[in-house]
Amino acid sequence: MIKRITIEVSARHVHLSKEDLYKLFGGGYELTKRNNLSQPGQFAACETVTLVGAKDKIEKVRILGPVRNQTQVEISKTDGYKLGVSAPIRDSGELGNSASGILVGLQGKVELGEGIIYAWRHIHVSVDDAQKLKLKDKDIVSVKTKGERMLTFGNILVRVDPNFKLAFHIDTDEANAAGVVTGDKGEIIL
Amino acid sequence: MIKRITIEVSARHVHLSKEDLYKLFGGGYELTKRNNLSQPGQFAACETVTLVGAKDKIEKVRILGPVRNQTQVEISKTDGYKLGVSAPIRDSGELGNSASGILVGLQGKVELGEGIIYAWRHIHVSVDDAQKLKLKDKDIVSVKTKGERMLTFGNILVRVDPNFKLAFHIDTDEANAAGVVTGDKGEIIL
Repeated sequence: MIKRITIEVSARHVHLSKEDLYKLFGGGYELTKRNNLSQPGQFAACETVTLVGAKDKIEKVRILGPVRNQTQVEISKTDGYKLGVSAPIRDSGELGNSASGILVGLQGKVELGEGIIYAWRHIHVSVDDAQKLKLKDKDIVSVKTKGERMLTFGNILVRVDPNFKLAFHIDTDEANAAGVVTGDKGEIIL
Repeated sequence: MIKRITIEVSARHVHLSKEDLYKLFGGGYELTKRNNLSQPGQFAACETVTLVGAKDKIEKVRILGPVRNQTQVEISKTDGYKLGVSAPIRDSGELGNSASGILVGLQGKVELGEGIIYAWRHIHVSVDDAQKLKLKDKDIVSVKTKGERMLTFGNILVRVDPNFKLAFHIDTDEANAAGVVTGDKGEIIL
């Protein structure tokens, strides 16, 4: 069975806790939805922040909603070199001893002691699709891409959740190295 | 036989024709060597240029010497998105219908009708090493890397030349996607 999967490319972005959202944009502030993302319930907000590292800053970093329990910043290694930030490769939510930096919003700033990561490349899959594809939560698989920059990504984390929609998420460095864009297809290899 | 190879990461850079060097830095100008590169006879110059695309510019792009017959600019796809430049993936020297842009030096500028490429990932190999590794010029091979971002690069061009030293050259996007830096090892797979 050929297991095809849609590739989605995540640009740098920020998930905010409610507390940090209020610090950055003012008490009681609510994010304004710009567009829905492919994962159900998730959206890109109109609001952005400036991300400041030891060496440089990046403006207009997109905020994704809704708010979460912890603030989490996901950047590429290219961004890390520019910012002077060296982050660990982590699954979403695993922020212990991740990298530090500063977020600046319209009304204030937040000094993050940790929270900046390079996202561990991962597959989102619903419970139904997981059964069809014979995948389990926390499986590690590979995905092969085609084209001039064809490559096989190893060490991909599978995450199964009833609310997930099947997609392989990579960052911009990974997309550029493979010469793929959102919507391109890959093949899952166990 | 396991065929190990050293990975070298190429940051964005420019090779200049003598004519364009003179336009950018003045008639009769000679590049100043900053440091030797791994490939015999090649060096990084002290001089840099600004590279201007349709959307943005990148300053301090390193010039590599010695001068060549044609000016050639090698950037990553990340750079391309920033600059507003969409370049083809090409072997060095294959510049027909490649991307356009402007170079700005201390004394002048050069409008490139073509010359900007994304480098086709490639292996440099001497004639002796090619025999040992059973590689031929223009072979296409794969290289597997290890680590948290382990991956297998496909469609790698082999170039054999008496003056080459064995190395696998990738750009910064490819290095970041694989989580490797210059000096790391990969394994050649035919």
